[in-house]
Amino acid sequence: MKLGLFGYGTIGRGVFTLVNKLNKKYNCEIKKVFDLPFKKDELKELLVTDINEIINDDEIATVVEVLGGHDLPYEVISRCLAKGKNVITANKEVVSLHLQEFISLAHENDCSFCFEASAGGGIPIIRTLIDNLKVNEVNDIYGILNGTTNYILTKMADEDLSFEDALDLAKKNGFAEANPTADLEGLDIVRKINILSSLAFSGVINNDDIYHYGITGVNKNILNKIKELGYSLKYVASSYKNQDNDVLIRVEPTIVKANHPFSSIKYEFNAILYTGSTNDNLMFYGKGAGSIPTATAIVADLVSILENRAYIDFDVKNILSVNKNIKNPYTYYIFDENGNYEVKSNVSDEALQNAKFYARIL
Amino acid sequence: MKLGLFGYGTIGRGVFTLVNKLNKKYNCEIKKVFDLPFKKDELKELLVTDINEIINDDEIATVVEVLGGHDLPYEVISRCLAKGKNVITANKEVVSLHLQEFISLAHENDCSFCFEASAGGGIPIIRTLIDNLKVNEVNDIYGILNGTTNYILTKMADEDLSFEDALDLAKKNGFAEANPTADLEGLDIVRKINILSSLAFSGVINNDDIYHYGITGVNKNILNKIKELGYSLKYVASSYKNQDNDVLIRVEPTIVKANHPFSSIKYEFNAILYTGSTNDNLMFYGKGAGSIPTATAIVADLVSILENRAYIDFDVKNILSVNKNIKNPYTYYIFDENGNYEVKSNVSDEALQNAKFYARIL
Repeated sequence: MKLGLFGYGTIGRGVFTLVNKLNKKYNCEIKKVFDLPFKKDELKELLVTDINEIINDDEIATVVEVLGGHDLPYEVISRCLAKGKNVITANKEVVSLHLQEFISLAHENDCSFCFEASAGGGIPIIRTLIDNLKVNEVNDIYGILNGTTNYILTKMADEDLSFEDALDLAKKNGFAEANPTADLEGLDIVRKINILSSLAFSGVINNDDIYHYGITGVNKNILNKIKELGYSLKYVASSYKNQDNDVLIRVEPTIVKANHPFSSIKYEFNAILYTGSTNDNLMFYGKGAGSIPTATAIVADLVSILENRAYIDFDVKNILSVNKNIKNPYTYYIFDENGNYEVKSNVSDEALQNAKFYARIL
Repeated sequence: MKLGLFGYGTIGRGVFTLVNKLNKKYNCEIKKVFDLPFKKDELKELLVTDINEIINDDEIATVVEVLGGHDLPYEVISRCLAKGKNVITANKEVVSLHLQEFISLAHENDCSFCFEASAGGGIPIIRTLIDNLKVNEVNDIYGILNGTTNYILTKMADEDLSFEDALDLAKKNGFAEANPTADLEGLDIVRKINILSSLAFSGVINNDDIYHYGITGVNKNILNKIKELGYSLKYVASSYKNQDNDVLIRVEPTIVKANHPFSSIKYEFNAILYTGSTNDNLMFYGKGAGSIPTATAIVADLVSILENRAYIDFDVKNILSVNKNIKNPYTYYIFDENGNYEVKSNVSDEALQNAKFYARIL
């Protein structure tokens, strides 16, 4: 099978390496790589600088999209699916916004749309969840879905660093981007919990409907107080659906008790825990980002295509109402600058956001 | 598709219930159930008391074996596979002893052999591991694979119970059998780590070659000492293969540090952690036993058969040498009755077994 690769950055290089290792067993080969002209030295005759050279190449049956951003990936993915090419992507922004459209296009054109790497990075959660949903109804999902923020919170708690020092260290060690806003404010997590919830609850969810509150307000005093209480602080996405298809999805700092399996999820690791009708409390743990873990997830999708077992049963029959008809039932620690706190329930989002910092109790 | 069910005990009943729920979507139906004559009241005309009534029924394409024990399940599985029937089993004893034979039979007769429920219970580890092995080489595996012993150790540590009281409580709450020897001495875990290691390392492993040491020697003094040190005690199976196909598999009490993801695996929960060439540190967590989790794993296998995506690529090209050519590199806490301890490396199995109790450091 001939492949087209869109994007030759960190993840694209990882995919390139792993696909070349697969080569002998599966007889697949990257025929063209789309990127900017300066990659010519590395890619030689494989490089194309016009997306149409891949999209219109009928010999290319499967493409991998790891460009980043929205507009170009959206164009590439939708046009390739319309041409009947299988598409594999790691792009959580595009997947969270257009999952339903991509899956419809794949169905109409008898090809596969695979996005294992778009949530949970190297953790094989998408396929596992799809499989498990055949025999299990998911009640709720909890995720530590962002390596940058979990790394910062772990460093602060375990090595008594300030927020700023922990963030600098994350940048230095490659766990935070130069502009970390999407990570620190929860936008990255919003996209991932959207994808997981859309699958688990069979519906379309708008990123804009998902509540999120960042971790930038945390300081040493607050973390020390949480440690004194015997708890740990995690940045958790939670998602819950009731029988009326009302969904409550919140991304917010969360206090977990010592015996909760999230308490030992440290540094850049991610975890997804869900409870269901027949499988209560399944948790999956691993690296949520990074070149090789992400490339591994992409190549796992590729192997499923090569073995004719890629699939997605995505049912959008439910019209989900997100964060509209469900009252927030959770209890919160509301902190001041010095780590003093009040414990409150029935508190409005506005009141939460006016605090120096707050954390939900899980 | 018509199904045959061998065994109508706790798990068989769970399978029966879940299959009936699948019915509409997949058009599958349990045609005959083999069990003893006294189940007639419950099963009515579905009951058969002669295994041949299912084995020789050509309309039955798939059978589920949940009889327990060895001889009858072995006969049922091998004869059904030889007839080209798909077989699903939860029987870790039989799978650990005959995996290679069953897979060969399935290949020869163009049917599927599925055993998701045989290790890790409700955790979908077998399929995930098989999938992941397409893109990842496993270096080593660690497992908390027995709910009974994890329940006992958690109750002792968190509620200061004696071993005897914790065992009684486990029996009372349905987490321990009347004769718990296979659990307490590690035989149950030996079978599960055998199955996982056979898959991960592509080879045949004899249960008799796997080192195991039970947890019956632990007492409150020892557990309190481990807690004082800030650690927790788990009953861990570990498995490691080097480049020469020498494998080290040990089932032994193990001390885990507070930041290890195993430290928050409590009560009847199980977890499997493995590290590999491209996916380092993946962990899967859930209920390892129980009627509904186990039945869920069985029905997940059934759905994979109904959707034509059941498979097993099991390669036995490697002749593994288990616990023969690898020196034990681990460090141990060796305890006396009062919880006093020495820390030692390079210690013989004989010396370990002569201690009141010991635990490896992970």
